[in-house]
Amino acid sequence: MINTFCKRPLWDVSGTLAAVAGGSLPADMVLIHARLINVCTHEIMEDVSVAVSCGRIALVGDASHCIGPETTVINADGQYLSPGFLDGHIHVESSMMGVGEYARSVIPHGTVGIYMDPHEICNVLGLDGVKCMLEDASRTPLKAMLTTPSCVPAVPGFEDTGSFIGPEEVAETMNWEECVGLGEMMNFPGILSSSEHTHGITGSTLKAGKIVTGHYSMPETGKGLNAYIASGVRCCHESTRAEDALAKMRLGMYAMFREGSAWHDLKEVAKSITEHKIDTRFATLISDDTHPHTLLSKGHLDHIVRRAVEEGIDVMTAIQMVTINCAQCFQMDHDLGSITPGKCADMVLMEDLEGLKVSKVWIDGELAAENGAMLKNFAPYSYPEWATHSMHIKDSITAETFRIPAKSGRTEVRAIEIIPAKVGSCERHITLESKNGFLESDPAQDVLKTVVFERHHNTGTKGFGFVKGFGITCGAMASTVAHDAHNLLVIGTNDEDMALAANTLIQCGGGMTAVQNGQVLGTVPLPIAGLMNDKPVEEMSHMVESLERAWEKIGCSMPSPFMTMALIPLACLPELRLTNRGLVDCVSFRSVPLEI
Amino acid sequence: MINTFCKRPLWDVSGTLAAVAGGSLPADMVLIHARLINVCTHEIMEDVSVAVSCGRIALVGDASHCIGPETTVINADGQYLSPGFLDGHIHVESSMMGVGEYARSVIPHGTVGIYMDPHEICNVLGLDGVKCMLEDASRTPLKAMLTTPSCVPAVPGFEDTGSFIGPEEVAETMNWEECVGLGEMMNFPGILSSSEHTHGITGSTLKAGKIVTGHYSMPETGKGLNAYIASGVRCCHESTRAEDALAKMRLGMYAMFREGSAWHDLKEVAKSITEHKIDTRFATLISDDTHPHTLLSKGHLDHIVRRAVEEGIDVMTAIQMVTINCAQCFQMDHDLGSITPGKCADMVLMEDLEGLKVSKVWIDGELAAENGAMLKNFAPYSYPEWATHSMHIKDSITAETFRIPAKSGRTEVRAIEIIPAKVGSCERHITLESKNGFLESDPAQDVLKTVVFERHHNTGTKGFGFVKGFGITCGAMASTVAHDAHNLLVIGTNDEDMALAANTLIQCGGGMTAVQNGQVLGTVPLPIAGLMNDKPVEEMSHMVESLERAWEKIGCSMPSPFMTMALIPLACLPELRLTNRGLVDCVSFRSVPLEI
Repeated sequence: MINTFCKRPLWDVSGTLAAVAGGSLPADMVLIHARLINVCTHEIMEDVSVAVSCGRIALVGDASHCIGPETTVINADGQYLSPGFLDGHIHVESSMMGVGEYARSVIPHGTVGIYMDPHEICNVLGLDGVKCMLEDASRTPLKAMLTTPSCVPAVPGFEDTGSFIGPEEVAETMNWEECVGLGEMMNFPGILSSSEHTHGITGSTLKAGKIVTGHYSMPETGKGLNAYIASGVRCCHESTRAEDALAKMRLGMYAMFREGSAWHDLKEVAKSITEHKIDTRFATLISDDTHPHTLLSKGHLDHIVRRAVEEGIDVMTAIQMVTINCAQCFQMDHDLGSITPGKCADMVLMEDLEGLKVSKVWIDGELAAENGAMLKNFAPYSYPEWATHSMHIKDSITAETFRIPAKSGRTEVRAIEIIPAKVGSCERHITLESKNGFLESDPAQDVLKTVVFERHHNTGTKGFGFVKGFGITCGAMASTVAHDAHNLLVIGTNDEDMALAANTLIQCGGGMTAVQNGQVLGTVPLPIAGLMNDKPVEEMSHMVESLERAWEKIGCSMPSPFMTMALIPLACLPELRLTNRGLVDCVSFRSVPLEI
Repeated sequence: MINTFCKRPLWDVSGTLAAVAGGSLPADMVLIHARLINVCTHEIMEDVSVAVSCGRIALVGDASHCIGPETTVINADGQYLSPGFLDGHIHVESSMMGVGEYARSVIPHGTVGIYMDPHEICNVLGLDGVKCMLEDASRTPLKAMLTTPSCVPAVPGFEDTGSFIGPEEVAETMNWEECVGLGEMMNFPGILSSSEHTHGITGSTLKAGKIVTGHYSMPETGKGLNAYIASGVRCCHESTRAEDALAKMRLGMYAMFREGSAWHDLKEVAKSITEHKIDTRFATLISDDTHPHTLLSKGHLDHIVRRAVEEGIDVMTAIQMVTINCAQCFQMDHDLGSITPGKCADMVLMEDLEGLKVSKVWIDGELAAENGAMLKNFAPYSYPEWATHSMHIKDSITAETFRIPAKSGRTEVRAIEIIPAKVGSCERHITLESKNGFLESDPAQDVLKTVVFERHHNTGTKGFGFVKGFGITCGAMASTVAHDAHNLLVIGTNDEDMALAANTLIQCGGGMTAVQNGQVLGTVPLPIAGLMNDKPVEEMSHMVESLERAWEKIGCSMPSPFMTMALIPLACLPELRLTNRGLVDCVSFRSVPLEI
């Protein structure tokens, strides 16, 4: 694959690189006395020098002849030199920050490239929104490589989104120079049922010679997984059991071991390689979704590599998983993923192999970060007005809007029971007593009224349901981060607070909020598509923490409840979900009524 | 990279594969009870079934639900199932057979794909000759993937060839669907000196997103090797020392361990992995040049895998080296190199892992060979008249043509001393006594007169020299297989026999011959470009053996002397060579006179 994520393409500079390696031209930079983490051969090589020219590596070994009077010489002083880290699957929107601020947060931790699937913004703003994110990213040194969102809407026919992506749209994006593949193909039912639309989307990617990334969340490794991989899907980050990851690698699929802020799969999934003596070239480490707080307090891929080591994966293998293995997954190993001649000079210097403390990060030969901080700042990207005004709800929302007339005094309803820190949910049947002819939340049973409002096209549609498991005893909460359509989701104990929560977000252009007794306890405004904010990571982290305290105040004690909340409308995950069109049975994929 | 070496592209059949894997459509073929050699994870998996549809693998595992009334079911009965073998670097012309006959020879040994560099025919007939070979190949199931000859002529300015390849010609071939990369870039001096022409050739390949294959024969792993790799060369088959292969892998270059008919590098080079505990993903096994006799008596990649095991490489690793590692080298692992869903159904069934006795070979799901023989025959490809009449020498050749006037009674001359079974040669200074005013061969010193006649454009140019080391005591020998220009090379003890040898080959359209005292002892006619014959491998092998006996008769006892002889004009190999323009010092790359 042609890589445009470099300072200059190799064919433009190969003559210069040869001259630098041969000593007839001086290098731009020479790094001396490094301990090289050789991810090609799985070795540590002592006292290695690296010569850099035109943003690429000219020579690895003894580079003394590459030093001229203008050459910057940096003494690594025995520190460990690794290829820059690559995150094979990430939704930047989950960080609630624009790509620029995200870059500022992850580069100092050694991340040089991300394979981003901006399917959140795409559901709201379509490919124009994706283009904004690419422009935002282009101001930064981070290699923000696009995998085109494949499932917009996530489950066609069951929800209303702001946009639509079909085979033609995918084919168009395959001509974009930032595009390296297709984002996670969550519609595995479409793949398994040989849907022409779904195979058209993967086909547009395969025809372009690019990579189809996957999402196969079933605990099944037979017919279904084979059908999915046979359709050309090359990687998957959805294994939560070691046996699933092992089966995927055995079937030639890159298993992406996930350790995000909310989803902690690594502990289990690592066993696929620690308990089996296998070639690990098909294993990678990815983050999927990361919050500001995690980035600030733990780091990014450096943290995930440390976690992998804690789970028994040797550190060299873990580093291969975020470098060469990932580059090979995307067939970009000719440019990325190793410190070898000709490759982009994307390098990370670390003080030790235990703490993986990153001291310096180079991208395309430029020193980008040092001792935990970026060397250069860039102004926040200005998203256009249409991107920061994405709340399109025509009807005014009042307490009455949330009324659900009861058909009888006692009513059995379907409720979505959440499973903390897991993406799945269960369908529960709950009996509610009507109050004044209406169905209301019943905090005593931990059952809360839930409403999803369409917010993209002023259709006025809304879906009603109940959720169980948040533990909320008073007030209400709302969010426009509500996967994947990102309609307006409101959960509460009473209709008045639910209306206040909804209107609070309509007013600030989207975000997350918690209210109680007519008071707003906390809000994280996310005016960019109702998903992101252009504030610095520290401020975002602070706002999110404040909101978490507000959530606690209304009775929810689970960590990061907004992540679990945000999955309530995600109709590609089992078992029961609520969209703006109503309840969806996500096992049989059909709409089901609230009352049984 | 888009692979057109398949029955049908994946995007055309992904829906069908998904249906077959899921059980809603029957498979074309199901193989049951196989021991799967899983090259992805380096494991042997017991009792595996494989379902095949549309030439591709639909499912690996339990395939009982994929069997319909029309499905061909084959019981592997516990035999070992490997992905089809891939040869990462091969010149088919060295087999002296057309690609069709070559395919017939190698497929029964498990070879399903070759990365062929037809630089022999290209030097004689240009890209039109290459097209003939591709057409010849296309009639067969063998995946004959083209790497465009990069060095035609091999060393510009020192020889005359039938054709010329520059950056534009390379760029043109990159649009050919059979082309997957650039053939061995032998002109490493051009790369190292940043020659615009040479980097233009590699650049045309890189711009097309294809693979630049290499040839770095220097025992040097510092400046030069780094410069070469930094220029985008991805693999190299020229390591003869373990340290060279190890250095290449450490620098992210695929090391292709060579075991050809004449070049036996494996014994030494294998130590790069048997004596170092490294990740072996950058190691492959290739043949480079193979003769009919080797193919018949030993096999092809199956033989090389057995040799690798003899040298201490574990058999699973050796099989990875001819399957997934090679496919990853060419970034074609999404289609080739493993038995996993979606890949081309290129499979080899073997009775055991010791002898690697191949019982069945499938290519694109079709049974191609069984128990050592092809299942289908194909008529020989008819090369056009211009391809079979490539001897263009206008002057009639007589004994007088070979006269070298002596400048004095005793003359010190440069002689090329051959090194048996090695590609290198040495420059020796020899004193010759003139006879009747002429310099003559001196069999007592094992020094023979050698002449190279230009044969492509009737230029009438010829180069004179002496070789040492063949041990010939009488007669003469000649060949039009004379790398890489493939001019007419004649070596002999007397001018009369040399003239006879030359005229014998002119008459039969090229080939190899040995004569003595006015009698032709043996000839292998190679009328296709003076390089190949369309006869079956058995007949070719028989003819070559007869010729070897003729060579023995005139005093040459080395094995396969024609291989060593054919390298005498190859000016990209050290130290001294003879082309139609005269002697070339191949260390300093300059023409040198015969007399010192």
